[in-house]
Amino acid sequence: MNPKVSVYRTAHFNSAHRLHVPEWSEAENQRVFGLCNNPSFHGHNYELHVKVTGEVDPVTGYVIDMKVLKQIIEEEVSSKFDHRNLNLDTEEFKNLNPTAENIGVVIWNKLKKRLPEQYELQVRLYETPRNYIEFNG
Amino acid sequence: MNPKVSVYRTAHFNSAHRLHVPEWSEAENQRVFGLCNNPSFHGHNYELHVKVTGEVDPVTGYVIDMKVLKQIIEEEVSSKFDHRNLNLDTEEFKNLNPTAENIGVVIWNKLKKRLPEQYELQVRLYETPRNYIEFNG
Amino acid sequence: MNPKVSVYRTAHFNSAHRLHVPEWSEAENQRVFGLCNNPSFHGHNYELHVKVTGEVDPVTGYVIDMKVLKQIIEEEVSSKFDHRNLNLDTEEFKNLNPTAENIGVVIWNKLKKRLPEQYELQVRLYETPRNYIEFNG
Amino acid sequence: MNPKVSVYRTAHFNSAHRLHVPEWSEAENQRVFGLCNNPSFHGHNYELHVKVTGEVDPVTGYVIDMKVLKQIIEEEVSSKFDHRNLNLDTEEFKNLNPTAENIGVVIWNKLKKRLPEQYELQVRLYETPRNYIEFNG
Amino acid sequence: MNPKVSVYRTAHFNSAHRLHVPEWSEAENQRVFGLCNNPSFHGHNYELHVKVTGEVDPVTGYVIDMKVLKQIIEEEVSSKFDHRNLNLDTEEFKNLNPTAENIGVVIWNKLKKRLPEQYELQVRLYETPRNYIEFNG
Amino acid sequence: MNPKVSVYRTAHFNSAHRLHVPEWSEAENQRVFGLCNNPSFHGHNYELHVKVTGEVDPVTGYVIDMKVLKQIIEEEVSSKFDHRNLNLDTEEFKNLNPTAENIGVVIWNKLKKRLPEQYELQVRLYETPRNYIEFNG
Repeated sequence: MNPKVSVYRTAHFNSAHRLHVPEWSEAENQRVFGLCNNPSFHGHNYELHVKVTGEVDPVTGYVIDMKVLKQIIEEEVSSKFDHRNLNLDTEEFKNLNPTAENIGVVIWNKLKKRLPEQYELQVRLYETPRNYIEFNG
Repeated sequence: MNPKVSVYRTAHFNSAHRLHVPEWSEAENQRVFGLCNNPSFHGHNYELHVKVTGEVDPVTGYVIDMKVLKQIIEEEVSSKFDHRNLNLDTEEFKNLNPTAENIGVVIWNKLKKRLPEQYELQVRLYETPRNYIEFNG
Repeated sequence: MNPKVSVYRTAHFNSAHRLHVPEWSEAENQRVFGLCNNPSFHGHNYELHVKVTGEVDPVTGYVIDMKVLKQIIEEEVSSKFDHRNLNLDTEEFKNLNPTAENIGVVIWNKLKKRLPEQYELQVRLYETPRNYIEFNG
Repeated sequence: MNPKVSVYRTAHFNSAHRLHVPEWSEAENQRVFGLCNNPSFHGHNYELHVKVTGEVDPVTGYVIDMKVLKQIIEEEVSSKFDHRNLNLDTEEFKNLNPTAENIGVVIWNKLKKRLPEQYELQVRLYETPRNYIEFNG
Repeated sequence: MNPKVSVYRTAHFNSAHRLHVPEWSEAENQRVFGLCNNPSFHGHNYELHVKVTGEVDPVTGYVIDMKVLKQIIEEEVSSKFDHRNLNLDTEEFKNLNPTAENIGVVIWNKLKKRLPEQYELQVRLYETPRNYIEFNG
Repeated sequence: MNPKVSVYRTAHFNSAHRLHVPEWSEAENQRVFGLCNNPSFHGHNYELHVKVTGEVDPVTGYVIDMKVLKQIIEEEVSSKFDHRNLNLDTEEFKNLNPTAENIGVVIWNKLKKRLPEQYELQVRLYETPRNYIEFNG
């Protein structure tokens, strides 16, 4: 069997967002989300690390062509979220609170659909250098 | 004479903003600012490096008490800009385009007023790890 | 079932320490710990990454409230170890050699007690950017 | 049982390389490897993170003596690959395409042989800060 | 007068090179350049920080349009040096030793020609995170 | 004239220290230095960036041989301060408060004596990633 290796590719997008549960009162939103509930939004430089695990092709020495992976991330994530307001400008977060956790799960689902079956996928998303999340599906 | 040393203190704030010149047409704004003109805003993790230059006090070995500098930055910058929309939530950028350059100049002016005369001040502001600005007054 | 996501929060503390086994001779301590055995101590900027894994709450979109996690880390770690001498000023390392491994295990145990049962916990501790450890319990 | 902890040690080496499958035509090599196929080579600052997992020795508080681990990495990796052309100057990549995946597997095998049986080993290799790989054996 | 601000833009290129003075003996080259003289080359991930200083335009709030600066760097530097062998594949270093110092001066000259007169230019070039150079013209 | 370029070399040392003015009362020391006055010391991973400015040698393309600069830093700084207690183990800080400012000035003076006349010298010292100082002589 060929060795199973993980390859990582990074990307980034700069977005505005607001944490808010519409079913809750303003007071409840304030209590739980604090400054992140600011109605006029705030924003982040999101840094994304995509990890794809699979067997190394014995001829090329590649797990996956990084140019292809880069292109998929560009199409599914950067072109959709970069310089956007996640709450207002995207379908994905119209009815889903754009916490780092939810953004990570959404990205994982979008990338998973584009990758051949044999690959395992992990997504790590830095909201700031001090807060980040990881999702393995 | 005592040695003249520069001390740096970092801070950060996460804000939404939009680049826009109200006197211009939408087309002109689009042409110059591109994605940064998105009417529903985008955002950044701004990283601020404040540099204060002065003589080292021969007794304490300090140029300035870092606890004091940290407090001034907190009061003048972080508490005003963090988790805010620069265009909508701040007086400073109601009529000033919140480019990194302008944010840097605004911060420099705010900090300069709070520092004793003898200090020189420089502000470096990272909009992203790949784009940053520096202002010396 | 809700997606299971890991959230990370970072913290830091600056401490003095000395590696030393009291049952050993000075020569043996020197041989094993080298410069780290210096009797007048040396020190580090410890960087701590705390990873908490659990289900995403379908209403809030949070695994855990980061303000709560931040507060627990502050109470259990930073307020106890920051600007302290680990060997002299803490109960935990009075009789335990403060290697990065042992510090990591101690922190894991302190945080684990404060977290609700359903969460998995991992601690990563950077002694320097070039030496770090990880503990999963 | 003693706690099982992972310790990490970093190293780096600066090498030239070229991605190339000799059985393929130039056109095919170009199509798959693009700029990385440049016949006169290009290069990278490789950053290596070696993770060794084992029980903490209850006397020393060490999983493994970092000075020993550092020495093994120096002998097996840095002294062989640093300031070398991987394709031309090393036995390992004479007949193996020096992709990050293959370099990681080669390093893992070289280090594994030098470590006592009881340790688990993981190798992470950064080809650039934006592309990296991980191998667990 | 408008405030004078510096803006920075980063770029990167991955190249092979060799330090060598053709007029010298092999022994002299070895003595001065050591491993960097390896005849089959080694390589680096060069990180470039371009600093442009000028007045802030009172309408746009820009010193220079970053999209323009990014394009100039792409045309003059990245497209020429990335994934190239500096000694073999570039005109600039056919007869000039590609030390970090010389690469920095060459890049400064190439960028300077493309920038309007009123701007001051500084180039910082990281050969590794531990060795870097700066040139102001 | 040959171009004047700055070259940087980094180093690091891990030390314990305590900020304290012996002429002052405990209360006064506490008020000014806070936690940094802890009598049993705390510590840091100091990161040092040494900047040397001079003309590029037209033959070698070097401002200064980095191997020589690295050796001078090793002899004057790392071998003296690494894994030491600055207050107890060094002559330099027996009677000088080891603030980052004072450490920077001491290092500058030690390095300046070892460098040929024609070079300008700057020292930047990171006490933490968030607090650092710079000294130009």
